[in-house]
Amino acid sequence: MINIAIDRGNSYIKLGVFKDNDLITFENIDYNFDIIKKLLDKFNPDNLIISSVVSDNYNLTDFLNKKVNKIIFLDHTTPLPVVNHYKTPETLGKDRLAAVVGAQFLFPEENILIIDAGTAITYDLLLNGIDYIGGDISPGINMRIKALNQFTSRLPLVNKSNDICFPGKNTIEAISSGTYNGMIFEIEGYRTVCNNKYGSVKTIITGGDALFFEKNLKKPIFADQNLVLKGLNRIMEYNV
Amino acid sequence: MINIAIDRGNSYIKLGVFKDNDLITFENIDYNFDIIKKLLDKFNPDNLIISSVVSDNYNLTDFLNKKVNKIIFLDHTTPLPVVNHYKTPETLGKDRLAAVVGAQFLFPEENILIIDAGTAITYDLLLNGIDYIGGDISPGINMRIKALNQFTSRLPLVNKSNDICFPGKNTIEAISSGTYNGMIFEIEGYRTVCNNKYGSVKTIITGGDALFFEKNLKKPIFADQNLVLKGLNRIMEYNV
Repeated sequence: MINIAIDRGNSYIKLGVFKDNDLITFENIDYNFDIIKKLLDKFNPDNLIISSVVSDNYNLTDFLNKKVNKIIFLDHTTPLPVVNHYKTPETLGKDRLAAVVGAQFLFPEENILIIDAGTAITYDLLLNGIDYIGGDISPGINMRIKALNQFTSRLPLVNKSNDICFPGKNTIEAISSGTYNGMIFEIEGYRTVCNNKYGSVKTIITGGDALFFEKNLKKPIFADQNLVLKGLNRIMEYNV
Repeated sequence: MINIAIDRGNSYIKLGVFKDNDLITFENIDYNFDIIKKLLDKFNPDNLIISSVVSDNYNLTDFLNKKVNKIIFLDHTTPLPVVNHYKTPETLGKDRLAAVVGAQFLFPEENILIIDAGTAITYDLLLNGIDYIGGDISPGINMRIKALNQFTSRLPLVNKSNDICFPGKNTIEAISSGTYNGMIFEIEGYRTVCNNKYGSVKTIITGGDALFFEKNLKKPIFADQNLVLKGLNRIMEYNV
């Protein structure tokens, strides 16, 4: 069975093509019909699943219905292989939910802290491989850099770089270092709290900045940049 | 000797009246001549010092020159009781420098991590009571909350509250908790790194959110909301 999974985030669109459980190709794309058409023609998928964290819902249905057997627009009513204990499931980011399901698929029956480091950084908790109990949200790297510039009078917009030092010796170093160190301390803090509170907790990191953190965290961390796509495919499989 | 110290931050103005080394009164004010005039008339100060992190420089000099003996507009050329090793002293926030001098005054000859939790949060390091070696900058609580709302499509603007939980069970809890926990982990991370790198390091926290962190950090922390004013007064005394 060929599935296509589309993950529309705040600042990117990712598309993955799956043959059963295997991701056979993925692309970061602009959201336009031509690229999607091309991929549909090329892979002739059976099913398609879309998760979107943005509000516009792009009238794809008519077009897609002719092309594939089943389409899922992931929302809070979609049946899932996890139990969702979030109090307001309708406001839960679909990418967060998909990442949780992706983590469950990769490491069944474990306690897992799922970190998605993108525009925002999210910390979600799956217990005993089945209970999704909620999570936290804080600003991602680029958002912190941009906020320091836009919400103050005198701080410059610094380029995202991999320079981490402490203490910063000039304003650019101070912002780079404060942003990166802050997030590293934050991730390490969440891991410690989870391990203290829930016993052994596996951590998975995904999102655009996953590889940066994989390199710079003290304790090794499992990184998978396609966790959301894998979760979407798993949700698709669960529903066909 | 009566000194008045004015600290103009990104989102507030604080004014302190000192009799020698003692802060006898302080006020959070809007920046307007009337209030400043009234305080000058009331206290008849000998000297006045102003630190500003914003760019406009408000033509106070003429008015003030008639009223006080000496005025200092704190800048990178002002003589200081610390050695400034920052590579770009002209871009260093004057409030950061003043807070460092305030810390030196309160705890002479120590290694000190000075945290100013305001619009931005800054982490500055004074070694051996004399060498200011630089610091880091990251977004403050309100800035994180605002950024999550303004730089994403679907996250709401949450009110600043003291709710800290993990994991958040709805989007408002997720943002509050992510923002507060993130900053708590960040502060604890900086303290640990400083102690590991420089041996015993005292930590002082100041700024609008100092009392929140004083309450919520695991290890006790010394909080002083008037650290910048005290540093400004110390700089004034050093220069007269």
